Amino acid sequence: MKRDFAFQHYKISGSSLIEKTVAGLKPLDPEMMKKAREQEDNLTKPLGSLGRLEELAVKVCGIQGRIHPSLRKKRVVVFASDHGVVSEGVSAYPQEVTAQMVYNFLRGGAGINAIARTIGAEVRVVDMGVSHDFGRIPGLISLKVRKGTSNFTRGPAMSMPELSRCLEAGVELAHLAKKDGVDMIAGGDMGIGNTTSASALFCAYLGIAAKSVVGPGTGITPSQIRHKAKVVEKALAVNKDSLSDPMRTLAGLGGFEIAGMTGLYLGAAEKHITVLVDGFIATSAALAAMKICPAISGLLIFSHLSEETGHKVILEKMGVSPLLSLNLRLGEGTGACLAMAVVEAALSCHNRMATFKSAGVSEREK
Amino acid sequence: MKRDFAFQHYKISGSSLIEKTVAGLKPLDPEMMKKAREQEDNLTKPLGSLGRLEELAVKVCGIQGRIHPSLRKKRVVVFASDHGVVSEGVSAYPQEVTAQMVYNFLRGGAGINAIARTIGAEVRVVDMGVSHDFGRIPGLISLKVRKGTSNFTRGPAMSMPELSRCLEAGVELAHLAKKDGVDMIAGGDMGIGNTTSASALFCAYLGIAAKSVVGPGTGITPSQIRHKAKVVEKALAVNKDSLSDPMRTLAGLGGFEIAGMTGLYLGAAEKHITVLVDGFIATSAALAAMKICPAISGLLIFSHLSEETGHKVILEKMGVSPLLSLNLRLGEGTGACLAMAVVEAALSCHNRMATFKSAGVSEREK
Repeated sequence: MKRDFAFQHYKISGSSLIEKTVAGLKPLDPEMMKKAREQEDNLTKPLGSLGRLEELAVKVCGIQGRIHPSLRKKRVVVFASDHGVVSEGVSAYPQEVTAQMVYNFLRGGAGINAIARTIGAEVRVVDMGVSHDFGRIPGLISLKVRKGTSNFTRGPAMSMPELSRCLEAGVELAHLAKKDGVDMIAGGDMGIGNTTSASALFCAYLGIAAKSVVGPGTGITPSQIRHKAKVVEKALAVNKDSLSDPMRTLAGLGGFEIAGMTGLYLGAAEKHITVLVDGFIATSAALAAMKICPAISGLLIFSHLSEETGHKVILEKMGVSPLLSLNLRLGEGTGACLAMAVVEAALSCHNRMATFKSAGVSEREK
Repeated sequence: MKRDFAFQHYKISGSSLIEKTVAGLKPLDPEMMKKAREQEDNLTKPLGSLGRLEELAVKVCGIQGRIHPSLRKKRVVVFASDHGVVSEGVSAYPQEVTAQMVYNFLRGGAGINAIARTIGAEVRVVDMGVSHDFGRIPGLISLKVRKGTSNFTRGPAMSMPELSRCLEAGVELAHLAKKDGVDMIAGGDMGIGNTTSASALFCAYLGIAAKSVVGPGTGITPSQIRHKAKVVEKALAVNKDSLSDPMRTLAGLGGFEIAGMTGLYLGAAEKHITVLVDGFIATSAALAAMKICPAISGLLIFSHLSEETGHKVILEKMGVSPLLSLNLRLGEGTGACLAMAVVEAALSCHNRMATFKSAGVSEREK
């Protein structure tokens, strides 16, 4: 049994932090989930009438290993980084937008800031590898690996030691969240070019054709989409020797922000923090985490169906069902942050609703 | 043009309040929506990337007639009432549950209390016609018409003067909300037997067959569902002379809580309060409002797709697209309350996000 979720023989450039995280990551607690299901069935509502809210509450009980899960703090960690592949002309926006948006996050002017404010979540911003010198700037967590990945149509996006640094950064950010009392966390992404990287990862991990997953990203034309699919095919061909190994696949086709999110998911799940996965980019990071450590699979909550082409097929292939479908395609953790309100409501029902007995409400007629 | 939304020649038992409300109800402001759309397009995000959040923000601008809509207070009004048709054996729960759940709402132990708490919405509980003497009880708004409707398989559920009382009660609750500074409102329902009433209304208003809309409600068996469909068919036959008129249809087949919600929607929309429509029961109340006053149609936000059979077909037939789909079938306003978080997030983005110009973010490459 323990083998199911044990570390899968990777030597991650000697990273004991990642090895320990993967080895320590426990799947959902089935006993606690059974108790939680019984608790749901006693609450003053027709059986099962809270639908997916019940499923969420039971899952969080299974994550936290307690019948009344706590929810003290919610956090969104936005990982920003640049991508060498932008030189292939795959995005509607110039690369400098990544850095400009980091400033926007720090000033509170981006979508994720506006949404997090109403949801009551904190936002943390991390520079994983933006092509810009920020210097010391208040609020920015600088974990820059280097200024953007390499163009992965010519070789791997990053080296294995660089991948380790990204994963460790994510794990450490999860540990920091734990220390700060965070119970629910999401990763967000910012990186011009990153739908190309995510698309390549989906093709490699799921065996889907490039043309099924490559879409308009921030808004390219149909002919540009065809070009982008060719770029992905080239990346897959150039990196083909790495694609049998999940870690080397992530190094070959990923981005620093994507690998950072993968580390965050692993670290948070190992610390029993509820993880909400955002949209298209975040799903590629989650898929990498699931390939590296299958035990994480049941722990992740897929928050929304992105408007980006292919996300539906990808999620179906992964066997997961997203909570929301609001035609979002912004990234930054926006969909995951919105979904936090749903999870919070689910926990509130689970923890606070009266039972038929305590409220003196008649049960159904037999 | 004014004719489009003008009062449609009903003499509502001489109710000048309802006549005035319907006559005064203005559709969405197209000029303001155009401005709001331009504002959305300037915000620091790829064009249209906030999907339905943008659509919601634009709609609320059209409702409030201002470019930066305010959101001070959110309220859910739960209407409780009983139904004479329960004597036909259409529900899995006994009738006394309606009253027991009213006590549960007042003590804060129901699903809507738990959800409203996390969403930051107030809950108001209204007795429209529960078969129980509550006496004077703190927190309960008593607008009881009588103890339950008549069994509508034998004649109309209520008289036209009783319908007027329900509609007026709803309008007055909307006016009270306006006075209290509420910008966003939902109606919720509690009433054993009310999926039967709502199903009959859908059949009458939309010309759908009973077997397409009748479902398990709180959880009856397949053979009980077939019986329930026959009960609906009988109700339609008995009340057939009323069904060419929207008001008489509502009196014939509705419930006091359903008609109360219809009044709330009309009153709130007339006062530029954003209305979120909950699930199956609330949709029947909204449909009645749309039939009575077509101008309200564009103003309503349909919050979620209920798990109750037929809701999908009904919403499609009504030409509306629900925001959430979480397999809920509880009522009480729970789905609408959850959706308030989405609308609030949409407004937060609209009102607070930086523009490309103000944030110095490069626009897309031409």
